[in-house]
Amino acid sequence: MTGEGTGPLAGLRVLELGHFVAAPFCTRLLGDLGAEIVKIEPPGGDPVRQWGEQHNGSSLWWSVHGRNKLSVTLDLKKPEAIAAVLRIAAQCDAVVENFRPGQLDRLGLGAATLEAVRPGIVIARISGYGQDGPGRDRAAFGVIGEAVGGLRHLTNHAPGTTDLPPVRVGISIGDSISGLYAAFGVMAALWRRDAPGGDRRGREIDVALAESVLSMTEGLLPEYGALGLVRQPTGARIATAAPTSAYPTRDGGWMLIAANSEPLFARLCALMERPDLAADPRFRGNRARVANVEALDEAIGAWTRTLPTDALEARLVEADIPSTLAYTAAEIAADAQFRHRGMVREVEDPAHGPLLHPGIVPHLKDDPGAVRWAGRAPGADTDAVLSRLAGLKPDEIAALRAAGTLG
Amino acid sequence: MTGEGTGPLAGLRVLELGHFVAAPFCTRLLGDLGAEIVKIEPPGGDPVRQWGEQHNGSSLWWSVHGRNKLSVTLDLKKPEAIAAVLRIAAQCDAVVENFRPGQLDRLGLGAATLEAVRPGIVIARISGYGQDGPGRDRAAFGVIGEAVGGLRHLTNHAPGTTDLPPVRVGISIGDSISGLYAAFGVMAALWRRDAPGGDRRGREIDVALAESVLSMTEGLLPEYGALGLVRQPTGARIATAAPTSAYPTRDGGWMLIAANSEPLFARLCALMERPDLAADPRFRGNRARVANVEALDEAIGAWTRTLPTDALEARLVEADIPSTLAYTAAEIAADAQFRHRGMVREVEDPAHGPLLHPGIVPHLKDDPGAVRWAGRAPGADTDAVLSRLAGLKPDEIAALRAAGTLG
Repeated sequence: MTGEGTGPLAGLRVLELGHFVAAPFCTRLLGDLGAEIVKIEPPGGDPVRQWGEQHNGSSLWWSVHGRNKLSVTLDLKKPEAIAAVLRIAAQCDAVVENFRPGQLDRLGLGAATLEAVRPGIVIARISGYGQDGPGRDRAAFGVIGEAVGGLRHLTNHAPGTTDLPPVRVGISIGDSISGLYAAFGVMAALWRRDAPGGDRRGREIDVALAESVLSMTEGLLPEYGALGLVRQPTGARIATAAPTSAYPTRDGGWMLIAANSEPLFARLCALMERPDLAADPRFRGNRARVANVEALDEAIGAWTRTLPTDALEARLVEADIPSTLAYTAAEIAADAQFRHRGMVREVEDPAHGPLLHPGIVPHLKDDPGAVRWAGRAPGADTDAVLSRLAGLKPDEIAALRAAGTLG
Repeated sequence: MTGEGTGPLAGLRVLELGHFVAAPFCTRLLGDLGAEIVKIEPPGGDPVRQWGEQHNGSSLWWSVHGRNKLSVTLDLKKPEAIAAVLRIAAQCDAVVENFRPGQLDRLGLGAATLEAVRPGIVIARISGYGQDGPGRDRAAFGVIGEAVGGLRHLTNHAPGTTDLPPVRVGISIGDSISGLYAAFGVMAALWRRDAPGGDRRGREIDVALAESVLSMTEGLLPEYGALGLVRQPTGARIATAAPTSAYPTRDGGWMLIAANSEPLFARLCALMERPDLAADPRFRGNRARVANVEALDEAIGAWTRTLPTDALEARLVEADIPSTLAYTAAEIAADAQFRHRGMVREVEDPAHGPLLHPGIVPHLKDDPGAVRWAGRAPGADTDAVLSRLAGLKPDEIAALRAAGTLG
């Protein structure tokens, strides 16, 4: 089997020297849109295969994280493995890696070597803090990088509200955002290389997790620089608008309600049968509502707490007030819009049977890409790739296997 | 002035029909890497110019959000404005928009019209839930879309820990991620169009905020589908590893400590002078530590609470334990690594004086792009763009202005 797919990136071949989350997420995105992805793993497989819930002896996350990829196992401590990687790289448009800075050079897979075997190759490197600088060797754990980028401080209740710590966004958000930035960078570099008038040369793309998070912090830096203002977390609310928060339902759910405009607030007061709130000078105009948001949210929460989730949601929809239950996996899986759009889809996984996968983002009208197969076993494609792309003969592959190079 | 820059996307011209966060964030990324960005705004300017802290009469966020863009003000309710937009679009490679689905068609700026004036144009559309389907018209507020995508439920303390609501990630994370996905999609479509063997045709890219978030939820969907397991939030912790959390310092900061391996945990116990913890069977091995994480984190927190942030950090660094203070704007601005990498940089803003901006992600070695200028006043480039790109003569521009079409 070859790994080529359909979609705008069909014909592109990408080598993944990745592990854990960031680089594999980048190649998942490229593969979803049609690129052929060759993933090199150590003989035991990418450690992420052991993460999260296991089922039939392998991780369910892997089914998604490894989809559309060819898996080749190689022990990169052996020179024969490095030689094989370079033969594969010679057939690739891009490499995506997230080893510690400097590690690939030490293995003999540095940028100059890759460029020598494949002139014009694009190399994306993902790390915690970047490939250079005094802090490049700092521990690259996702939770550390997210905190350095400012995300953790802001993901908390307002100062003084609680003694509980600021929460982790419940997914590997920093890793995923870096992987997405790397995918963007790879395509920007390939466009510059390949488009008419392009320069036909490769580029190195250096993506740092902490920087990827920091890039999304809106006015945080200029506000600090100009005003000395240190942005603070605001819990479930937005600092400059009210009411907008998460309110408790009778059965323990959380309902997001965003009634932070004059007509929306008027409709909400009518729905709550609280004309007194609409008339209360404490809540007249957004500025007053923000100043008195504790009292306002208390009143709204007292009302939402009287209603079961379904009834509350029905009333809010009826009144055309922007709102939603905070979806769990159950609501996501049942959502008609996600199903219509293929964003919740069934994928046949030989290891697990039919599974639910998230779909492909972005949607490309008329050329959407596909989930061609679910994440496969470590080394499932070793022989085929070594033969087809590295040009090795069966006896050469057998010799590598006998020497333990393939695991 | 023209808007062309340096970097891999120099020579690309992109029309932004955007407002608020998602589409303007997409074009900021494209502009940072060198694309010329022409932003169309209503005569009063993009509402985001009023968001966040104001300084010298304009928003500090805007200085970042609007950087490297040309601003053209047009009243799109007037047919002459639509004609001008189409003349500009005829000179562009791509359009990025985040109006409500269907709105651009109603204005006379639908995909077929854009394709007619510029064959091969790439069109990126960002919305809350996508351009089609039964839910496409649902309220597209960021906080609603993030909750539908599953992010809000997961950004909370563990069930039963607190009555406080799940928190908002303190930045417009869903909007920014969708903008980044759109930038990736634009470059994927342009590569397919322009590379050797490419098909020379345009594509429509349909990015939904709720879907962008859902795409990052790891094993959430397959775990639900296969096991009926509904993923739950875990507060400051990670569900499957311990100890890793945010711990209080004596002076009110939060220290992230990730000592979730055998050698790291041993070093932490030694640093805490608690050989009893290292020897305690409740904490022997990761599985036991996860099972007894409350007691373990209590012990670690009791220690961290005795030390001021600086002293605690120095000791953790000395012991080589992955850790960091949860950075605020102050620590970010002072960080040597961010400064070295240009991720915290001074930008001269004529409206504000020198300001701190976040730098450019991704870094491209040898071809990094630039912050050419800070966000400008609404309409600062109207005349120049109408002349240079729409081919209007001075008297035609004057007539548009007299008719109120330019604001």
